[in-house]
Amino acid sequence: MRLVSFERKDGRHSYGTLNGDEILDAGAVLGDTFGDLKSVLSAGAANSLSGVGQALSLADVKLLPPIPNPSKIICVGLNYLPHILESGRAKPEYPSLFIRYPESIVGHGTPIERPSVSREFDYEGELALVIGKDGRHISEADAWDHIAGYSCFNEGSVRDYQNHTTQFWPGKSFERSGSMGPALVTPDEVGDIRDQTLTTRVNGNVEQHAPISDLAIGIPEIIAYASHVITLKAGDIIVTGTPGGVGRYRKPQLFLEPGMSVEVEISNVGLLANGVIDEPMV
Amino acid sequence: MRLVSFERKDGRHSYGTLNGDEILDAGAVLGDTFGDLKSVLSAGAANSLSGVGQALSLADVKLLPPIPNPSKIICVGLNYLPHILESGRAKPEYPSLFIRYPESIVGHGTPIERPSVSREFDYEGELALVIGKDGRHISEADAWDHIAGYSCFNEGSVRDYQNHTTQFWPGKSFERSGSMGPALVTPDEVGDIRDQTLTTRVNGNVEQHAPISDLAIGIPEIIAYASHVITLKAGDIIVTGTPGGVGRYRKPQLFLEPGMSVEVEISNVGLLANGVIDEPMV
Repeated sequence: MRLVSFERKDGRHSYGTLNGDEILDAGAVLGDTFGDLKSVLSAGAANSLSGVGQALSLADVKLLPPIPNPSKIICVGLNYLPHILESGRAKPEYPSLFIRYPESIVGHGTPIERPSVSREFDYEGELALVIGKDGRHISEADAWDHIAGYSCFNEGSVRDYQNHTTQFWPGKSFERSGSMGPALVTPDEVGDIRDQTLTTRVNGNVEQHAPISDLAIGIPEIIAYASHVITLKAGDIIVTGTPGGVGRYRKPQLFLEPGMSVEVEISNVGLLANGVIDEPMV
Repeated sequence: MRLVSFERKDGRHSYGTLNGDEILDAGAVLGDTFGDLKSVLSAGAANSLSGVGQALSLADVKLLPPIPNPSKIICVGLNYLPHILESGRAKPEYPSLFIRYPESIVGHGTPIERPSVSREFDYEGELALVIGKDGRHISEADAWDHIAGYSCFNEGSVRDYQNHTTQFWPGKSFERSGSMGPALVTPDEVGDIRDQTLTTRVNGNVEQHAPISDLAIGIPEIIAYASHVITLKAGDIIVTGTPGGVGRYRKPQLFLEPGMSVEVEISNVGLLANGVIDEPMV
């Protein structure tokens, strides 16, 4: 299944399933029981959305991030092995974890915003996973059972703010600087996630291209490690790191400007596309 | 005013004002209008709590963090000038910002927990401020107007997890590893916060002692900088950094163990005290 959250033409938020260009509006039927997709996951009820709801055209809704209101978005720093080794570093022993806030991301098709205070707005194509079952101190062996599904993520980064100090957070939580979607795709539909391939295109040109199997610290290790710190809850998002090819290290450098477009595509997961605009001045 | 959030004997959560050993349970009167203290701040209605509610004995409630459910807790790394200079570093140009999740803190009087996976559990006495008015791109001149009040914070840190990589987050969000309180104290009651002094005691011994005026990056600069990244909302917490004297750099080192106690006291703000226990095994 491909699970989506969206805003309808009447402005109401809902959720449902995506098939091609058609959405079934399950939220219109189940909304009293489950207020949002996070509540559906929390109840272990994702399967109950199958085939439920009136059909809407994808063109008639605005897609939101699949989970618009996660309690946590935990991101992993540099995590693709060839790129780590080529930069002269050793395979890391621990995942480098930092946080984004939900306000920092938009859904498929909504423009991402270059901050007014920076001209170093960069893309990072990444695989995101969504937690489906609460857990603390999760073992690596159990980790796969805690995954509700996968999605594409553009971990839009404001490089000067990211590097003002050692701590990445300021460069990683600018409002509407990143994106996630189009859908949350359940594992049965993806197959083995390690067999998939990530591609990032800027204005149609391939800038990042790597197999998910190149992850230096694998998905079970990331989940186990983060769950020692804090309970991972249904709807929480883990963003697994970006491969080589980001704009800051490209020669010449390539930063995002209004009018450009970014696509993050992962085989069997989907294609996330967003234009770029300047942060609107209020 | 000293604003508090608390759990009553009947298990219900409420909020109100603290005077000595007496709490006025304003939430029991205003709860239909404002569900929690964050909603009170968001409505700009803190003054309406004055004198409202039945009196309860402080001994009959469990204090929660003054804002139990902030949308953000933004922490500043090392930020006391003498300690920075003595360690051979220059005055930083930008605040080093990282995030804690609300699950990582408890209120005054509730034990903090040493994680099962670490033996490097450390204290950090800090001044916390609470945002009272939403704002983005706040100027330094306007910053003071966005402060609802101040509180004491023990930014309990798990040093091995903090230093596994460059990113501090894993060492800073262990569940119930830190604390805040006892109350949120409004600026009129504190006087000039820069005239106050921070003291941290472990088992009654002074381990940290510094004037708030030693902050390398001042409160208006921190607020302005963070607000460029993301809208600061009523109830958001900014934790301003710790002075020298933490356990990791002490000679000999001093890590927290079950049975120990930590006090963070700030003149005119209050005294936050917590015992230490081991993380309960579930």
